[in-house]
Amino acid sequence: MTGIARPTMINAFDPSAADDLNPETAHAIHRRNSVLGPGYRLFYERPVEFVRGAGAHLFAPDGTDYLDAYNNVQSVGHAHPRVAAAVYEQLQLLNVHTRYLQETLVRYAEDLLSTFPPPLARASFTCTGSEANDLAFRIAKHETGHEGVVVTRTAYHGITDRVSSFSPSLGPRSPLGPNVRIIDAPDALRAALLGVTDLGGEMRRRVCEAIEDLRRHGYGLAAFYADAVFSSDGVYTDPAGFLAPVADEVRAAGGLYVADEVQAGFGRTGEQWWGFQRHGFAPDMVTIGKPMGNGMPIAGLVLREGLGDKFGADMRYFNTFGGNAVSIAAAQAVLNIIREEGLMEQARRVGDRLRAGLGTILASSPHVAEIRGAGQFTGVDLVTDRGTLQPDVDLAARVVNDLSERKVLISATGVGNVLKIRPPLAFNDDDADRFLETFDGLRAVLGA
Amino acid sequence: MTGIARPTMINAFDPSAADDLNPETAHAIHRRNSVLGPGYRLFYERPVEFVRGAGAHLFAPDGTDYLDAYNNVQSVGHAHPRVAAAVYEQLQLLNVHTRYLQETLVRYAEDLLSTFPPPLARASFTCTGSEANDLAFRIAKHETGHEGVVVTRTAYHGITDRVSSFSPSLGPRSPLGPNVRIIDAPDALRAALLGVTDLGGEMRRRVCEAIEDLRRHGYGLAAFYADAVFSSDGVYTDPAGFLAPVADEVRAAGGLYVADEVQAGFGRTGEQWWGFQRHGFAPDMVTIGKPMGNGMPIAGLVLREGLGDKFGADMRYFNTFGGNAVSIAAAQAVLNIIREEGLMEQARRVGDRLRAGLGTILASSPHVAEIRGAGQFTGVDLVTDRGTLQPDVDLAARVVNDLSERKVLISATGVGNVLKIRPPLAFNDDDADRFLETFDGLRAVLGA
Repeated sequence: MTGIARPTMINAFDPSAADDLNPETAHAIHRRNSVLGPGYRLFYERPVEFVRGAGAHLFAPDGTDYLDAYNNVQSVGHAHPRVAAAVYEQLQLLNVHTRYLQETLVRYAEDLLSTFPPPLARASFTCTGSEANDLAFRIAKHETGHEGVVVTRTAYHGITDRVSSFSPSLGPRSPLGPNVRIIDAPDALRAALLGVTDLGGEMRRRVCEAIEDLRRHGYGLAAFYADAVFSSDGVYTDPAGFLAPVADEVRAAGGLYVADEVQAGFGRTGEQWWGFQRHGFAPDMVTIGKPMGNGMPIAGLVLREGLGDKFGADMRYFNTFGGNAVSIAAAQAVLNIIREEGLMEQARRVGDRLRAGLGTILASSPHVAEIRGAGQFTGVDLVTDRGTLQPDVDLAARVVNDLSERKVLISATGVGNVLKIRPPLAFNDDDADRFLETFDGLRAVLGA
Repeated sequence: MTGIARPTMINAFDPSAADDLNPETAHAIHRRNSVLGPGYRLFYERPVEFVRGAGAHLFAPDGTDYLDAYNNVQSVGHAHPRVAAAVYEQLQLLNVHTRYLQETLVRYAEDLLSTFPPPLARASFTCTGSEANDLAFRIAKHETGHEGVVVTRTAYHGITDRVSSFSPSLGPRSPLGPNVRIIDAPDALRAALLGVTDLGGEMRRRVCEAIEDLRRHGYGLAAFYADAVFSSDGVYTDPAGFLAPVADEVRAAGGLYVADEVQAGFGRTGEQWWGFQRHGFAPDMVTIGKPMGNGMPIAGLVLREGLGDKFGADMRYFNTFGGNAVSIAAAQAVLNIIREEGLMEQARRVGDRLRAGLGTILASSPHVAEIRGAGQFTGVDLVTDRGTLQPDVDLAARVVNDLSERKVLISATGVGNVLKIRPPLAFNDDDADRFLETFDGLRAVLGA
C-alpha cells in the first residue's frame, strides 16, 4: 500500500502512518487491511468510525457528533425513517427483478421522468453510477458506430474497466483509453488570466479540437461526458449556460452528450432537479445515482425518446439488482421526501448562506481565489498567491484534516486544492451555523 | 423491440404478441415499454406479475401461488424475515461507505473468507457480479500486463462494456472483444460422441490452443473465466475434477484463473460453499454475487493473498455502495441463515431427489439426453433425437412456458435446449413434490 500518488486522492489516509494512531484505531486498520482487497482507501490522516447517523450528523462509537458536510449519498439525511420504513415494508413482501411485471417500478419510472424536460423520456436502472456511465457508453458506441470519448481534465465517471479509461482523476497510473481525449475544465478564473471572456465559446473550441483529433485517429466521436457541476475538476458552475454550445458541437459531430448527474442531480444545485438545466439545454443521455436511494444501491440512465432502439433490438440489458423492488421503494421515498420536505429549496437557501458566510470569514485571506458553487455544492479554491492562482494542495489537505479534528467532514477536489463542501440536502440552518463557527477557527491557517 | 434473435434468450416475451394477452396485462406492458429504456425483456410468452413471496413461492396479485424453481437470488427464501429485520435495523442506524472504519464490514469479510480454502484470503466488495468480473479483469490486466481472455462458448459473465465483450451468451449482435477467445464448454455427452474420454485433458487442450492464438495475436493471456457449473452453457458439473488441469494450463501461461461463482456459489452445489471446490483446486480470483444479500445489491471479488498489490498501489478502487453497512448486514444474515437452517445440506438432498424424480418421469422420453447437475442446479438436456444429440430448442421453450402456465417457474440455458432448474436453496421437500407432480403432467409433451 506504499507509494500511493497523493495528488490523485488528497485526503486519503497514509497507511504507513498507522503507528502514529491510538492502538485501538491502529488495530482496527490492521485487521481491515488484512482482509480487504486491493485499492481500498480510508479518509483523513486520522481515520474515523461511525456507528449512527441522523440528518447531517454522524456519531462515533463514543457518541461524538460529527457534522457531515461531505456525504451526498444520504441526501435526505442519514438513517431517514421514511426510507427505512419503505425498504422494510417492501423487503417483507418481495424483492424481485425486472423480468416480471412490477407496478412500483413503472410508477417510479413515470415519477422520475416527470422531473426531466423533454425529450428525456426513458429510464433504465442499474445499481451504480459507474454502471450507468458504462451503459451510456455501450449505447453511444452502438448507436453512433464510433468509440471516441471526450472528458474534462480531472473528470471522474466511475470504476468499470471502460469508464475508468475516461476517468483521469483516478491518477496518472490508471490507464486512459487510446480513444479518449481530455480537455481543460471550465475554470473561468484561470481562463480569464489567459484572456478568455466567453467561456462557452472557449469550451466549444476545446471540444471541437478534441473531436477533430479523434476523427483523424479513426475513432470518431461516440460521446462527450461531463459532470454538470464538474465535481471532481474543482466545482465549476458559472457562468450558467456555458455547456449549451458544447452540446451543439457534440451533436454537429454526430456524437451524444452524456450529462453525468450522479453528483449534481436530485436537486443538489438548489434550483432545478438536474444540474444541466442551469445551462439551458437537454442532453441525449443523463446518468444518475448516488443520492437516488439515500444509500440503497440504485442508479440509472435516462435517455431521450428513440435513442437506444438499435441497441435494444440487438441486445438485452439485464441488471439483476437494477430496479429491484426494494431499491425502487427507497428511490420512491427519496423523491417524495425531497418534495415534501422542500429539500431543493433548502439546498439553495442554506447553500447560499454557507457561501456568503465563508466569503465573510475568508475575505482577507490571500489564499482564497474563489468561493463558488450552486445549492449544496461549494468549492473553495485555495492558492499560494491570488495573482498567479497557483493551486495550494498542501493548504487544502491541512484544512480538510483540521476540520476533521474539529468534527466537521469535508474533502478536496480538482488537483486537490479546492475544498469540496457537499453536505446532505438535509443540512439545515443550525448545521450551517456550526459549520461557519468551526471554519472561523481556521482563520489563522488560512491567513484570514 | 422487433427482430430480437430468439436463441439468445429462449424464454423472452415477444412484444409483438402483446395483443394476444388479456387487456390488463397488455396495458401494463405498454405502460412499461413507454417509460423503460432499451434492452429490457420480460419472461415467458405470458408475462407474470408478483406482489408477495415466501420461501420458494411467489404470489400473483390475485393470490395465485407460483412455485419458484428458478430464482437463485432470493436463495434463503423470498422475503426472509431475518434478512428484512437485519436490513431494517441497520438502515435505522447508519448506511455509510467503506472510507470510514466499519466493524461490521471487517467482521463480515472475515466470516466470508472463512468459507474459502487458502490461499484465497482477501475480499473486495462491489454491487453486482458484473462489477466483480469487471474488477477481476482490471486486476488481471494490470498484474499480468496482458489483455487476453478465454471463456466458454455460451458464457455469461455480465453486462459492463468490458465484461459483455467476453459474454458470448448475449447473442450474435453483442460484440466480442478482439482479445477474446472462445472454447467449447465441457459437454461430456457430446464430447463422447467425438471420442473424447478424458474431459479434463480435452479442456486443457482447448484452453492451450486458445492461449497460443492470443499469444500469436499479441494479446497474451490475462485471465480464464469460467462459471463453476457452466450455468449459461448448459449446466456441466461432471466428472468432478475436469477444471483442475485447466487451472494448471492457465497458470503455466502466466494468466489468472477467475472462478465465476455468481451463480454456483453460496452452497448451491450442495456439497461445499463454492462450485470450484468439487474440481479440487483453488482459483486466483473468485467472483461472487446474486444470492449474497438475498436480493439486496451486494457482490464481491475474493483474491488469493498477495494478488492485486500492484493494482492497489497504483490505483484506488472505490465503489460508493459496495460494502455499505446495510448490504453487509443483509449478507451477514444470509451467511448465518445458510448455516443455521442447514440450507447447503437441504440443497444437496432436495436437489438429488428432484433429479431422481425427473429421471423416473422422463426415463422413456426420446427427447431427454441427460439430466445433470449438483445440489440445486439442474439441467435437463432436450434433443430431437438421442442418437444425434441435436438440441431441441423449441421443445425446451414449450416446456418452460407450459410449466409457467401450470404455475411453476423455470427457464432454459445453453443454446436454449437445456431446462434450467435453479430454485432458491429454501426449496424444500414439499416444493419438490409439487414440482414433480406438475412436471408429470408434461409427459405427453415430452413423449414420456
